[in-house]
Amino acid sequence: MAHALRLAARGLGNVWPNPAVGCVIAKQGLVVGRGWTQPGGRPHAEVRALAQAGTLAQGAVAYVTLEPCAHHGHTPPCAEALIAAGVARVVTALTDPDPRVSGRGHAMLRAAGIAVTEGVLTDQARHANAGFLKRVTRGLPFVTLKLAASLDGRTATATGESRWITGGEARRKVHALRLAHDAVMVGSGTALADDPDLTVRNMGAVRQPVRIVLDRALRHSPDSRLGRTARDNPVWMLHGASAPGAARAAWEATGATLIETAEAAGRLDLNAALSALAARGLTRIFSEGGGTLAGALVRAGLVDELALFSGGVLIGDEGHPALGALGLAALADAPRPRLREVQALGPDSLTLWSF
Amino acid sequence: MAHALRLAARGLGNVWPNPAVGCVIAKQGLVVGRGWTQPGGRPHAEVRALAQAGTLAQGAVAYVTLEPCAHHGHTPPCAEALIAAGVARVVTALTDPDPRVSGRGHAMLRAAGIAVTEGVLTDQARHANAGFLKRVTRGLPFVTLKLAASLDGRTATATGESRWITGGEARRKVHALRLAHDAVMVGSGTALADDPDLTVRNMGAVRQPVRIVLDRALRHSPDSRLGRTARDNPVWMLHGASAPGAARAAWEATGATLIETAEAAGRLDLNAALSALAARGLTRIFSEGGGTLAGALVRAGLVDELALFSGGVLIGDEGHPALGALGLAALADAPRPRLREVQALGPDSLTLWSF
Repeated sequence: MAHALRLAARGLGNVWPNPAVGCVIAKQGLVVGRGWTQPGGRPHAEVRALAQAGTLAQGAVAYVTLEPCAHHGHTPPCAEALIAAGVARVVTALTDPDPRVSGRGHAMLRAAGIAVTEGVLTDQARHANAGFLKRVTRGLPFVTLKLAASLDGRTATATGESRWITGGEARRKVHALRLAHDAVMVGSGTALADDPDLTVRNMGAVRQPVRIVLDRALRHSPDSRLGRTARDNPVWMLHGASAPGAARAAWEATGATLIETAEAAGRLDLNAALSALAARGLTRIFSEGGGTLAGALVRAGLVDELALFSGGVLIGDEGHPALGALGLAALADAPRPRLREVQALGPDSLTLWSF
Repeated sequence: MAHALRLAARGLGNVWPNPAVGCVIAKQGLVVGRGWTQPGGRPHAEVRALAQAGTLAQGAVAYVTLEPCAHHGHTPPCAEALIAAGVARVVTALTDPDPRVSGRGHAMLRAAGIAVTEGVLTDQARHANAGFLKRVTRGLPFVTLKLAASLDGRTATATGESRWITGGEARRKVHALRLAHDAVMVGSGTALADDPDLTVRNMGAVRQPVRIVLDRALRHSPDSRLGRTARDNPVWMLHGASAPGAARAAWEATGATLIETAEAAGRLDLNAALSALAARGLTRIFSEGGGTLAGALVRAGLVDELALFSGGVLIGDEGHPALGALGLAALADAPRPRLREVQALGPDSLTLWSF
């Protein structure tokens, strides 16, 4: 199952709105088939692994990170494929919360006389599938908040200089993290200040993440890097009802997708914005916005994981804060995420924190 | 020598104005004597190790982390003691920069027919003796700057709440670090806000660090924890010429030592303050002051090491910054210390950075 989970991870960022699933078929202690959800979400992991195993699948054990599907969608159900291939036993990590599956896959296998073991490495599978699970069960995407800060928590000097607080290895890691998410998101402040293109470079990406700007008044220029490349790779502009008609028309002309979102207190309502993104199928969002957006996301309880890149530099309190206002009444109310992983990246470090 | 360096470290914080030295005497592959500078600076490491070795010192090798002294001070010179004991060879890591020694110890040994090897593990010995070396060569103490901050670089909430950003293991480590320094130093802002006593607790301390407040106008109350305990353990108040006479008299009555220091731009001149502390024999200072003092020390280039305690909590930009203004013109001018060590302390982490 650990092997199947590693295979599943290959699909992260490439398979939305589907879950990233891994499958390993083993017979007499040998791996005879391996598969993972392919870009775009099809073929499914089981189908790939069965194709690789061929007739060796007969009497074999299939390890699947998620309950095999039981419904006819774009493809015939994987549970049927496993039955047809004659596997003797299926081991799964998670029940699929999708109401079209939700136990029916396991039941279909058992009805065909296949031994089913559920709940193996469930915690790890739940973490790997957190985006898919959160979208299906709560209608929200999994949000990873990226902060790249100096040792004293600053992202830029007083004059806005921020290249480079962290070095080349950290930048490469940022691209790898973008690739493992369905979308990259920034606020309008960052878009205006940095004119970013938010693509994944030098990573052999087969599918670029969707590029999202939270831009209530559509202040960002359609003649920006994002606007000029919106036909090459998707750009989604989330704006409020008050965004000027001319700006809407200009952004539509670039090929970007415009998504009107509810406002609250003169800003986009982040809950509504993220719900809209989940409704369009996004499961994993990498938020690279500035301190204001970061603070608002934390404050709204919408962050699932913090990826903190720390550069060995001191900037002082004239610099821009990595995290905006949280409105804490007391220290006891402060968010205390759990440290999950530490990585050295040349002179910098990356710590991953779960909320 | 590595063993001798570990012994030397036991003296850090206890031996000022003397260096913390370690000595190992080995004969035929066996350790026959070990010594380190004793609290207060005497007896010296070599004397302790020779006493332990007794007649076995004859024909042995002595490993000493610093050149043995050659002058008659409070004790006869260690070089003479090594000669008298009949050691065959002396291995040292560093030449003593003290003008009363500076090569004379090595020369005295050689003149007596003892083989001398210099420069073994010099870098490590230089780091261990950085306080003593800086005081003797530059007239300044080695300064360790402690920062205890949230992940976003805050030391307290907007209302000043700071207990606890880090947990119990981090607090114990703070006490261990205090103990390895000659003095603990805060600014008047921290003294007024926290009324700290700055002692080392539950560590079996044989000598408490000197407690220093940088308090230009002597605003801190003599009826504070520091004032009430100034006769038990030393308190040094550094103030400006403008400090009111009544406050001076009240502080003197507590038993504290008052040190008048030059002012610059309405604040204590930090260079002058630290020079005054070095002139009184301090070699290692642990600065626990607030963000303003921290920023001023970094800005003045007076920090040698940063001890950054990081708690897994987010506070937001209404909180107090860990580091005050640095006055950077460009990011290229920002201090970029070198990461030397990472320690996990329960839910928190400690990183040590060298400037």
